[in-house]
Amino acid sequence: MKKIRAAVIGATGYAGAELVRLLYNHPNVEITALSSVSFEGKEIAEIYPSFKKKPLPTLTNAEEAVKCADVVFASLPHGLSEPLAEACLANNALLIDLGADFRLESEEDYEEWYKKPFDKPELHGKAVYSLPELFRDAVKDAEIVANPGCYPTAAALGLAPALKNGLIKTDSIIIDAKSGVSGAGRGLTQNTHYPETNETISAYKVGVHRHTPEIEQTLSHVAGKAVKVTFVPHLLPVNRGIEETIYVKLADGVDFDKVRALYEEFYKDEQFVRLERSGAAAEIRNVTRSNFCDISLHFDKRNNLLIICSCIDNMVKGAAGQAIQNMNIKFSLPEETGLETLPSGF
Amino acid sequence: MKKIRAAVIGATGYAGAELVRLLYNHPNVEITALSSVSFEGKEIAEIYPSFKKKPLPTLTNAEEAVKCADVVFASLPHGLSEPLAEACLANNALLIDLGADFRLESEEDYEEWYKKPFDKPELHGKAVYSLPELFRDAVKDAEIVANPGCYPTAAALGLAPALKNGLIKTDSIIIDAKSGVSGAGRGLTQNTHYPETNETISAYKVGVHRHTPEIEQTLSHVAGKAVKVTFVPHLLPVNRGIEETIYVKLADGVDFDKVRALYEEFYKDEQFVRLERSGAAAEIRNVTRSNFCDISLHFDKRNNLLIICSCIDNMVKGAAGQAIQNMNIKFSLPEETGLETLPSGF
Amino acid sequence: MKKIRAAVIGATGYAGAELVRLLYNHPNVEITALSSVSFEGKEIAEIYPSFKKKPLPTLTNAEEAVKCADVVFASLPHGLSEPLAEACLANNALLIDLGADFRLESEEDYEEWYKKPFDKPELHGKAVYSLPELFRDAVKDAEIVANPGCYPTAAALGLAPALKNGLIKTDSIIIDAKSGVSGAGRGLTQNTHYPETNETISAYKVGVHRHTPEIEQTLSHVAGKAVKVTFVPHLLPVNRGIEETIYVKLADGVDFDKVRALYEEFYKDEQFVRLERSGAAAEIRNVTRSNFCDISLHFDKRNNLLIICSCIDNMVKGAAGQAIQNMNIKFSLPEETGLETLPSGF
Amino acid sequence: MKKIRAAVIGATGYAGAELVRLLYNHPNVEITALSSVSFEGKEIAEIYPSFKKKPLPTLTNAEEAVKCADVVFASLPHGLSEPLAEACLANNALLIDLGADFRLESEEDYEEWYKKPFDKPELHGKAVYSLPELFRDAVKDAEIVANPGCYPTAAALGLAPALKNGLIKTDSIIIDAKSGVSGAGRGLTQNTHYPETNETISAYKVGVHRHTPEIEQTLSHVAGKAVKVTFVPHLLPVNRGIEETIYVKLADGVDFDKVRALYEEFYKDEQFVRLERSGAAAEIRNVTRSNFCDISLHFDKRNNLLIICSCIDNMVKGAAGQAIQNMNIKFSLPEETGLETLPSGF
Repeated sequence: MKKIRAAVIGATGYAGAELVRLLYNHPNVEITALSSVSFEGKEIAEIYPSFKKKPLPTLTNAEEAVKCADVVFASLPHGLSEPLAEACLANNALLIDLGADFRLESEEDYEEWYKKPFDKPELHGKAVYSLPELFRDAVKDAEIVANPGCYPTAAALGLAPALKNGLIKTDSIIIDAKSGVSGAGRGLTQNTHYPETNETISAYKVGVHRHTPEIEQTLSHVAGKAVKVTFVPHLLPVNRGIEETIYVKLADGVDFDKVRALYEEFYKDEQFVRLERSGAAAEIRNVTRSNFCDISLHFDKRNNLLIICSCIDNMVKGAAGQAIQNMNIKFSLPEETGLETLPSGF
Repeated sequence: MKKIRAAVIGATGYAGAELVRLLYNHPNVEITALSSVSFEGKEIAEIYPSFKKKPLPTLTNAEEAVKCADVVFASLPHGLSEPLAEACLANNALLIDLGADFRLESEEDYEEWYKKPFDKPELHGKAVYSLPELFRDAVKDAEIVANPGCYPTAAALGLAPALKNGLIKTDSIIIDAKSGVSGAGRGLTQNTHYPETNETISAYKVGVHRHTPEIEQTLSHVAGKAVKVTFVPHLLPVNRGIEETIYVKLADGVDFDKVRALYEEFYKDEQFVRLERSGAAAEIRNVTRSNFCDISLHFDKRNNLLIICSCIDNMVKGAAGQAIQNMNIKFSLPEETGLETLPSGF
Repeated sequence: MKKIRAAVIGATGYAGAELVRLLYNHPNVEITALSSVSFEGKEIAEIYPSFKKKPLPTLTNAEEAVKCADVVFASLPHGLSEPLAEACLANNALLIDLGADFRLESEEDYEEWYKKPFDKPELHGKAVYSLPELFRDAVKDAEIVANPGCYPTAAALGLAPALKNGLIKTDSIIIDAKSGVSGAGRGLTQNTHYPETNETISAYKVGVHRHTPEIEQTLSHVAGKAVKVTFVPHLLPVNRGIEETIYVKLADGVDFDKVRALYEEFYKDEQFVRLERSGAAAEIRNVTRSNFCDISLHFDKRNNLLIICSCIDNMVKGAAGQAIQNMNIKFSLPEETGLETLPSGF
Repeated sequence: MKKIRAAVIGATGYAGAELVRLLYNHPNVEITALSSVSFEGKEIAEIYPSFKKKPLPTLTNAEEAVKCADVVFASLPHGLSEPLAEACLANNALLIDLGADFRLESEEDYEEWYKKPFDKPELHGKAVYSLPELFRDAVKDAEIVANPGCYPTAAALGLAPALKNGLIKTDSIIIDAKSGVSGAGRGLTQNTHYPETNETISAYKVGVHRHTPEIEQTLSHVAGKAVKVTFVPHLLPVNRGIEETIYVKLADGVDFDKVRALYEEFYKDEQFVRLERSGAAAEIRNVTRSNFCDISLHFDKRNNLLIICSCIDNMVKGAAGQAIQNMNIKFSLPEETGLETLPSGF
């Protein structure tokens, strides 16, 4: 089989570099272009010495990169993916967008949270939001793939079986999320400066994080009705990984054993979703650097509350790995191709 | 003034060592005895080389230690403080117990959570649970001081102004807690082995942690009615500190500005409780190695939810520091004596 | 091609688990047996939940494991590999031993450092110490492969070009090594207990670490004369990786540019050894979870001292990865098969 | 006694904030002014929320700060302390300079390493370099105190007894140093960005770090002859602390027992220097947040090499604590005043 020619736009950000890392070993992919606004003309190994001694294309610009690709992965600040999508369409390349531009279906929601309208509304009809475990059929016809955000991925996989089966009340979902610092990106900020990030934890953007409407959109689709959530992210002093502890009320008459059985049924054929054995809690180290999502279920019988722990690597299942999973679906490859790496647990 | 003679029982555990560290510099205290079951006869600097070159008593046993003390601090596994309390009373020494034996007023609750009855029920009438900011008057007459647990301290200080003033609903309080690893003690376990603790986070004892009834007891006293909580602790890869993110529904007709004003009023004269400025989140690094409790208030207006972040150092305000604060009250010293150290923030 | 049947003895230790992780994705290998003394009869995913949902053999004992393997990887405490080697030979299986039993050629050295003689001296003639970049030809005829230790691998690769070419004096080599905590294994000890390992560093076994004679044996072979070293390891608060800063005197008349040129020449065809560009220092994050060894060269012209930084992942190039590299050589596969993963750098 | 009025210039850098933290609790000091170029007019608690609720002066500029102080502590980039010194002298204030401007006695050395001459050479005669354990008598007449650098402090205390007593050869001293990230300051850089600092270690400025001439100056004074060193610092993923492993050759005829005895003698009356018991290695966690320097002695008898581990907290004994120790000497206070805090060891 002829290799898929892949370009990475924004290759020197963390999600971009992770795409390079994973695509480099994908058996059906040839990396044909890498682009970077800040480092055009340099070798990526100058910015990521971990890639030394491996043949990778010299960093170029987005315009050039799009021309030599069957699939374009983009990891850009919001607002930049719409013009890129046009270029991809013009070049017959599939765009898999790791940014936020095509995730929200409602322009109203987008404006409320991102403070700008859709620049090219006509493109949004060609885009499909694809969290494969929930929407894999839809992505097959997409010309633009909106790859989910990291927090929404963990939240949606943690809640989907419960919402799909009407097991929980939908008016009081609370998501307490903790993310590794790579989620904040490669750019320098005081709160990611080592001495002020290490040996602490803190909530941020409490109740106002932009992943909130994306989470609600997905959960509403799964539930078949409007779902609202309270979402509070925390910056966790680890490099990678997201843990979300989710608090929901069981619907009347639902017992916990039934919940567990339906989760097992829901995910029994999924390669990348794993339920913890009873009593154990999902934890980040078991998924790090892999495309797995680990989920554990707990029951607070004193308050009739279902507690769900959902863990992913924010850079893999939460970004680059899921993007490759989407590419595999689009190119009719087994979903796990290039994503088989096991996590070591330490 | 004659110095207070202090003994530390269980001096080689982490809370015990922290008592030694703080008492050593307390201007009104002389450490007269340290005891340890495992290391009797050794110098504490052999176990804690950080104490080298400082004159500290050789480790002895509890029986001997009690004899030469005006105040006895005990940090023992549950079940061992009741016999110790008798010895203290017999020796006219005040017992400040950092363990769980005297915290729960209800023997029924104690049996349910600790799987044993009170061994010496007659002693419990002499004991007072003392979280000073809430109950400082009560402690003055106590013969035994039950020092609060770490998680309950952060929870109670975070919630007290709201409960006291009827600002929140009491039937749906959720406490998502994250604790540094020192909270698990000095004993070796697989889940505190460095390579399996570092670069991860995980929930544990979900909904069944023994601090739950203690939290509920305190909150019920403050609220003046029975309060139940969902409490989920997580093991956080830092040495010290607790962060609790607490989710509560505002009572009907209460607005967030009022909440903030009443918190400020409630804590305006407290030395050790600090409210974050609006917009900032309380975080562990600002309280580490100090007796402060930092609290931030946030409002999710989309769901009418009050979100409270409450941070302490689990070893200081959550254990040794608060015990010394209680001693200061009992001996009519200013509460902050020996606890003036500022945290550095890094 | 028929798959190589591989067994891992000691599969639940860290090196064993790392072998499982890497062998599972090796395209030419089928894992046919895993053994564990402590967990016989259990599934490895109970000890390493990171392996959940992947088909792996139930843990058995070493005797059974050897029977169904073409190659046996063993990661055992010293003294246990000699009897295992006999069983492997009897079953026509190649033993790749990650332990210390077959590393030292001199029984005298072995007795001095390990306080016991060779139990089965006749086996030692069938064993070959194989650090592929230096001795890959020798391994082809081995019946037993002695896989190098982690510290010796980084030291030997860092020093080989200089010693081979007579660029340095051999009487004053100093190796200051720092290792991640996984190097201390999965067993519990006070000095790997999280709160006492985190936020510190300390030297250990100063001048008496058992890797010292192994380092000297390899360096002496490369130099063609006896070489002695001062070796001081430190426990570094990271999960993985070794950094060694090596101090050596340049031989008379040798200049630094020549050194650099000869290092480049020496390693130009090696897949797994990479020289840093001038001015940059090798660092752990660029090799983590990969089989790379990164080396940087520095010159202290004020003291005419060559300073070499050499970094590996202790669990991969320092253990499981190098063992697989040796297997690849023995089975005439490309050396990098199954070891292509790129490190991400964060 | 009237309190000493103290000003901190550069109060919002890490060393400045550490001065504030320690001076705030010094029983003989009143903090009368804090200055900051970046944050003039703000409260320091806005930058360091750890200082909330404590009365501290509003940030002002250096000119104003100097006017209301008996002692001025300055932590400034090099080149800025000379003009400040003039202002201090004019205001009859003692300057304790934590920067580099007055540390090197030789202008030639200063020019070589800092690429600029002394701007005000006449001031340098009024300055005394004061590492109290070695030079405490000299500081009494100083008008300007040059406070030692962090690396030089650990190196000098680790080597002084050996050099003073002629126990070691002076032509081959190697110092392998590891520093916590606070040593790099509060300013943002890529190599202190959490995801690229965590889980790694790397050497930097190999052989060219500006602390080299300062180390050599001090060692030469102690030895009574010119001493040269090879100095290689590493960035260690911890917040605080320096560990230096120092390699030196014993002088002919010197045995290790004698070395140990002379170290004990040398430091027997020092409050802040502690020798580890035989066999144990000095480590960072035992000195963190204290003014201690812990030293351990090791002997590689195979190579007749003395190995010294020397640990300090870079921010305390390596900066703010030592500056206060110097102030105490100048103001005839006991040296440990305000520096009595014990480290906890975890």
